[in-house]
Amino acid sequence: MTAEIDVTFRQATIDDLRALIALFADDPIGGHGDTTDSSALPAYASAFAAIEASPNDLLFVGVLKDEVVATAQVTFITSLTGRGTKRMAIEAVQTRADMRGKGIGAKLIRHCLDVARERDIALVQLTSNAKRQDAHRFYERLGFEKSHAGFKMRLAPAST
Amino acid sequence: MTAEIDVTFRQATIDDLRALIALFADDPIGGHGDTTDSSALPAYASAFAAIEASPNDLLFVGVLKDEVVATAQVTFITSLTGRGTKRMAIEAVQTRADMRGKGIGAKLIRHCLDVARERDIALVQLTSNAKRQDAHRFYERLGFEKSHAGFKMRLAPAST
Repeated sequence: MTAEIDVTFRQATIDDLRALIALFADDPIGGHGDTTDSSALPAYASAFAAIEASPNDLLFVGVLKDEVVATAQVTFITSLTGRGTKRMAIEAVQTRADMRGKGIGAKLIRHCLDVARERDIALVQLTSNAKRQDAHRFYERLGFEKSHAGFKMRLAPAST
Repeated sequence: MTAEIDVTFRQATIDDLRALIALFADDPIGGHGDTTDSSALPAYASAFAAIEASPNDLLFVGVLKDEVVATAQVTFITSLTGRGTKRMAIEAVQTRADMRGKGIGAKLIRHCLDVARERDIALVQLTSNAKRQDAHRFYERLGFEKSHAGFKMRLAPAST
């Protein structure tokens, strides 16, 4: 083990937006078409506003020496099943490319789990692209069980 | 193909709660511990209130001859990835045991997809227990891609 890295976590603000976009634009596997091109900035700003306005979403950033080095979004979902289970879904987990392998991702997920416990969440869930075998081992080491298959469907943009 | 079954879909109301609990209590695979025992009713009523209060959740019921025969919950999640993707997550999909194999589940999911299109959702996602191979084929027939692995972690109830 190397020395513990001194990353701290807090909720994102609009001032973090460009750094967050850069994190996602740097990800080759997800294939989400993210870009730091300024033409896309309004779409990101609109999404940020929607997340901030949602009472059931929190967007976290990991900060090291005043720089955003990681992020994750959590969504709280109450469902009827399991006698009314309170769940946390974790989405859009990312560590900056040059900051991987330092334990930042594990600290980020543990931060999400701490928040879940504070809010009396019974079940934490996430999906990971089937291609990301390293990520699967990472989540299993953290105590997650790969118990489900994740299905996605892209919908065509509405014609206007 | 048999004749199309005449199921209709609408948002659930509190009057549907007992029928919804009975649907979930009848599911042997999920292992969610659901029960029609009246001691659990307050927990379900509290969950129903949380879903109803959430601006990002809708709980649907499928109704046939004035009886609730199916249900699904959808959650709208905006994320930064993909230039601000609007997603719909589908959870807690259930068809009444004696009503399976009649195409009700497919109609239910298509109803969710219709709602997604109305709301300009780009990506619809769900997870299904790895044991539910029939469900996996069902979702693939409907056009979903099994592209992800789904991870879950149960948290112990907070000590009080």
